[in-house]
Amino acid sequence: MTWIDVPAGTRFGIDNLPYGVFSRAGHGPRLGVAIGDHILDLAPVLDDGVFAQPALNALMSRGRRVWRETRARIVDLLTDATRRPRVQPHLVDASTATLHRPFVVSDYVDFYSSLEHARNLGEILRPGSEPLLPNWRHMPVAYHGRSGTVVPSGTGITRPCGQSLVDGQVSFGPSRRLDIEAEVGFVVGAPSQRGEPVPTSAFADHVFGVVLVNDWSARDLQAWEYQPLGPFLAKSFATSISNWVVPLDALDAARLDGRSQDPAPLPYLARATPWAFDLTLEIELDGTIISRPPFRNLYWTPDQQLAHMTANGACVRTGDLFASGTVSGELRDERGSLIELTWNGRDPLRLPDGTERSFLEDGDTVTLRATAPSATGGQLALGDVTGNVLPARCGSDG
Amino acid sequence: MTWIDVPAGTRFGIDNLPYGVFSRAGHGPRLGVAIGDHILDLAPVLDDGVFAQPALNALMSRGRRVWRETRARIVDLLTDATRRPRVQPHLVDASTATLHRPFVVSDYVDFYSSLEHARNLGEILRPGSEPLLPNWRHMPVAYHGRSGTVVPSGTGITRPCGQSLVDGQVSFGPSRRLDIEAEVGFVVGAPSQRGEPVPTSAFADHVFGVVLVNDWSARDLQAWEYQPLGPFLAKSFATSISNWVVPLDALDAARLDGRSQDPAPLPYLARATPWAFDLTLEIELDGTIISRPPFRNLYWTPDQQLAHMTANGACVRTGDLFASGTVSGELRDERGSLIELTWNGRDPLRLPDGTERSFLEDGDTVTLRATAPSATGGQLALGDVTGNVLPARCGSDG
Repeated sequence: MTWIDVPAGTRFGIDNLPYGVFSRAGHGPRLGVAIGDHILDLAPVLDDGVFAQPALNALMSRGRRVWRETRARIVDLLTDATRRPRVQPHLVDASTATLHRPFVVSDYVDFYSSLEHARNLGEILRPGSEPLLPNWRHMPVAYHGRSGTVVPSGTGITRPCGQSLVDGQVSFGPSRRLDIEAEVGFVVGAPSQRGEPVPTSAFADHVFGVVLVNDWSARDLQAWEYQPLGPFLAKSFATSISNWVVPLDALDAARLDGRSQDPAPLPYLARATPWAFDLTLEIELDGTIISRPPFRNLYWTPDQQLAHMTANGACVRTGDLFASGTVSGELRDERGSLIELTWNGRDPLRLPDGTERSFLEDGDTVTLRATAPSATGGQLALGDVTGNVLPARCGSDG
Repeated sequence: MTWIDVPAGTRFGIDNLPYGVFSRAGHGPRLGVAIGDHILDLAPVLDDGVFAQPALNALMSRGRRVWRETRARIVDLLTDATRRPRVQPHLVDASTATLHRPFVVSDYVDFYSSLEHARNLGEILRPGSEPLLPNWRHMPVAYHGRSGTVVPSGTGITRPCGQSLVDGQVSFGPSRRLDIEAEVGFVVGAPSQRGEPVPTSAFADHVFGVVLVNDWSARDLQAWEYQPLGPFLAKSFATSISNWVVPLDALDAARLDGRSQDPAPLPYLARATPWAFDLTLEIELDGTIISRPPFRNLYWTPDQQLAHMTANGACVRTGDLFASGTVSGELRDERGSLIELTWNGRDPLRLPDGTERSFLEDGDTVTLRATAPSATGGQLALGDVTGNVLPARCGSDG
């Protein structure tokens, strides 16, 4: 039990302690952990310059032993009531703080690891043929995204402009099919060496924590540009991540065996320990929950993703972000993108105000949330990720 | 004329002055410019801490005005003989120095902008159908590569392991079709703002300089993995760049009008000024020149690439690298990759030692070079990029 007065049912309790970067009047950005409605200012209480930095990268680069020691020290500070006089002055009311992007993103990789999502997309985009491409059950398919446009929760998302093919004509203008993708992202702390693949058993030695990801996608741009090199401008305008990074250790009680796989994965992809997570996502559009994608069923688990990403000798670096790809479940209200929820616009969503949505409209606000069982038998949450759609600015070509 | 004794016919003369990062016994990595057989140690002669850094990024971030002033100061130091007593002590014999990766790569984007290359690949991979995909003449197609595995010239290239489909069976092992791609890369110095596309007319405000790029590619891995999200592990094990970054201004005499384009590009891709370059590349395999790809014919010029990359509001950052894609000409001995030179192995290359090559063998050394007309009527060179193929280390799965 913490000596801090945390709200009943908080999802940022003592068993969570996510890290972020915050600032307040008179102080530059620095590291904090969320506890209830407060942020613990780490630099003064832990007396280490790494906590006074404006990004988690330096802390994350120190490796798992330091991550665990740091977490234990923070738990001690917040549970041992004799620490209170020293710690209390450094608890910041979260409502008075500004949150920032928690880490500098090195490489950003986006997987495509939900079977239900891949199957839905196949059925929508290639009707009448086998929805899963031949490689899908053999490897966690992925692509590199743009790390320079990964933005923190709360950043406005300007509708992108770009080329699309409309009635056989190539035109340039605002995307008409702006979509979301609800994903879970894994943040690399400790780097690996080039030439040394990271086995599935070493997942926790490298992964520092977990964020929620909204991989905004312009479906019309994507359809026209993606052959043969994959999505590019359809995704690169913005990818939102939560401001809080939940440490991997906080998710211990949420760990599950991964879903069974057929065919059995090749040896380098064989799982060593359970790295599926019992996370339930939630997509809110303009105040209405439109979906609750279950992360527990992800076909390719993140330990397999990391092993695959490095199987060719590629190294990972501190700050690398790899995301699950859209998380979708079997049911309609478990789908993680609008293209699936509305079946490419065939079945628009009806919102309580009577309006319909096939894709996002200007002014729409999308918030992703995720909860998981916590070590104390309750629930903890990942950081929310929210974004508001702003009108396109295409200039004279629009 | 410089007062330094430069070798006759040097391609690193006073009209070139490429920037790099070098170290020597007793000194850490810092910035230098190449002149003849020497490297000018910039920190002591220019008296600014930015030159004592181990990467070009901070200098590059200062913008075009500073780049031009710095270049003018260096030219002055190396041409005004009265400077000699002060400068001479800081000229380092290049043979005593170690060269390093010249800048920290932010995002790495690889285009696909050579018409001849795209057509060759289409004919090889999709025989009997239209070789160019429908989008190709409408936009410079591209994908994001892995920035964390961009390595400097001279780095050994371990043959990657990965999945491929052989006789209908999925297997994991060393790539059997390791290839090169001869490319020219553009290095972003001054960043742009998210939401503000960079018009073709602003190319020189953002691009600091030019490198040679070898985008090593495992064709067998690529064929199996690339649907539908594009190349991933087939490329991400290593991308080599030259140690020297040639300033854009050094290439003024090499600038040409871009090749005519049909259909006319959309307005946001219309060229404002000539940004094609009269560069001739050279591919040397184990001591034999096997190709001389002409860069001057590139279909999509780099100003168009930058405008396209940012048309959706994506920003560029200091250290972003965008490469042309494989440069190929009309003729067989102008092709920029082995898959084209050997027509996917059908027509192996015969080397002077009597051996044949369809793709790279362990122990092979590939060196790319490029020359261009210089301001003084001679030739200047980009930095070479070389790499030696090391045997795969696939572990127990190999």
